[in-house]
Amino acid sequence: MKIAVIGLGLIGGSICKALKLSTSHTVLGFDTNADTLIKAKDQVAIDGAIDLADLKEADLVFVCLHPEATIDFVTSHIKKFKKGSIICDVSGVKSRPVAILDQLLRDEGINYLGTHPMAGREFSGFDFSDAGIFNGASFIITPTELTSLETLDTVRNLANQMGFGKIVLTTADQHDKNIAFTSQLAHLVSNAYVKSPSLKNEQGFSAGSFQDLTRVARLNEDLWTSLFIMNKESLLFELNGILNNLNDYKRALENEDVETMKKLLAEGRKLKEEADCL
Amino acid sequence: MKIAVIGLGLIGGSICKALKLSTSHTVLGFDTNADTLIKAKDQVAIDGAIDLADLKEADLVFVCLHPEATIDFVTSHIKKFKKGSIICDVSGVKSRPVAILDQLLRDEGINYLGTHPMAGREFSGFDFSDAGIFNGASFIITPTELTSLETLDTVRNLANQMGFGKIVLTTADQHDKNIAFTSQLAHLVSNAYVKSPSLKNEQGFSAGSFQDLTRVARLNEDLWTSLFIMNKESLLFELNGILNNLNDYKRALENEDVETMKKLLAEGRKLKEEADCL
Repeated sequence: MKIAVIGLGLIGGSICKALKLSTSHTVLGFDTNADTLIKAKDQVAIDGAIDLADLKEADLVFVCLHPEATIDFVTSHIKKFKKGSIICDVSGVKSRPVAILDQLLRDEGINYLGTHPMAGREFSGFDFSDAGIFNGASFIITPTELTSLETLDTVRNLANQMGFGKIVLTTADQHDKNIAFTSQLAHLVSNAYVKSPSLKNEQGFSAGSFQDLTRVARLNEDLWTSLFIMNKESLLFELNGILNNLNDYKRALENEDVETMKKLLAEGRKLKEEADCL
Repeated sequence: MKIAVIGLGLIGGSICKALKLSTSHTVLGFDTNADTLIKAKDQVAIDGAIDLADLKEADLVFVCLHPEATIDFVTSHIKKFKKGSIICDVSGVKSRPVAILDQLLRDEGINYLGTHPMAGREFSGFDFSDAGIFNGASFIITPTELTSLETLDTVRNLANQMGFGKIVLTTADQHDKNIAFTSQLAHLVSNAYVKSPSLKNEQGFSAGSFQDLTRVARLNEDLWTSLFIMNKESLLFELNGILNNLNDYKRALENEDVETMKKLLAEGRKLKEEADCL
């Protein structure tokens, strides 16, 4: 199979590397940065570059651009894809790409499947791409009633070969609700955390908890703004939730209410213990 | 030197083990739980148990109880300590123990030094104690004008021998301000984070960011309630700070204000990058 990967950033580059490492498919890359393409070829992350005029050669296309750019790319090049081929996006939000692309591509006789390889790092770009980031990670797939079983099987097999530890099937809406909590809120809180004037005195006073809370503060603001705004309702729900919870602790602290504070902390501890046991 | 360790929990137990591992001092343990004492003796974490009536034998005493219990212990047994000996507490807040114990012990001809071994785990008790948790960690010391150089040197040497990576000298007040940000707020936010109804759907959707944000949600509510209430003002300052910051993101999200969201996220990213470079 000929697989085209559009956008050789952290995820696109890692997909190329994982495919070359673990499959015998031909991997063709597209990137607007010529140096990145040369680097990818040199590192045998791709077999070669692909011109957009030649997209018809590809049996499967992974579009690995930021969410808005992904939708733009697919809609503006829709006539260039091969009939019967499979187009996958890898956006961290799924409702909007699925709502726009699923029917549009079906009408052109092209298969679409929304995916979210749940891997990332606090650094962006091809230079940080690595086949290993998928090892054991979740590969989330959001099929619809338009998705053929063959498409599903093809993509699922690729994900297994690329080393993902778990293939999770869900709806785009459920994906976005879940991800607002498990990933988007984490990035938002971490990014907010470092904005204390006390940050300048952190040296020598920070142990594991500080490092853990602030690791993902280092994010790509263009990508994450796009992800947050596209998932506004679900993220606001989670954000309001943690604001309410933090205000409960605040009141207990202001009132020096030992029993309430213990109760609030015990609730969180128990929920975490239960979640860890699942 | 004969060193007594009062309270063989996670920190007390680890201090015993680190002292036995790296020094030739005699280590004597006290714990209200007889089984813990037997276990500590069996594991050669202590040379033996010490009765409170024999506290006069100890040249140095580490009091490793919860903060309130530490103050209670020292004040109620103050006549039992050896004149000229050194008493160290290991509480995670320092202003209150220092304010109460420093002058009190000096009046009895006893040296006091507040310390905070900045190591911990999300589990409590002797069973989780381990000399290794101090490796590379900060050992914070809060001397006052009453602290003799000899006391400072003795404790500093012990910390070095126990494997701490950094000895940090500061005032009790500055310690409490810094620790509110680098540790207490982290535990509070992490504990609040898990309280979303979405927690039940976390499986398959959580990657590193979720695990990092929620690791320390698993805390000992009795200990942390005591630490939080004792450091009320500084913790409230940090809590109000993150609440304000999160509300900035909330407004940007509600207004779908892309430019403001990017600006807010870039601010956090840059602060984190700068902090990581220090």
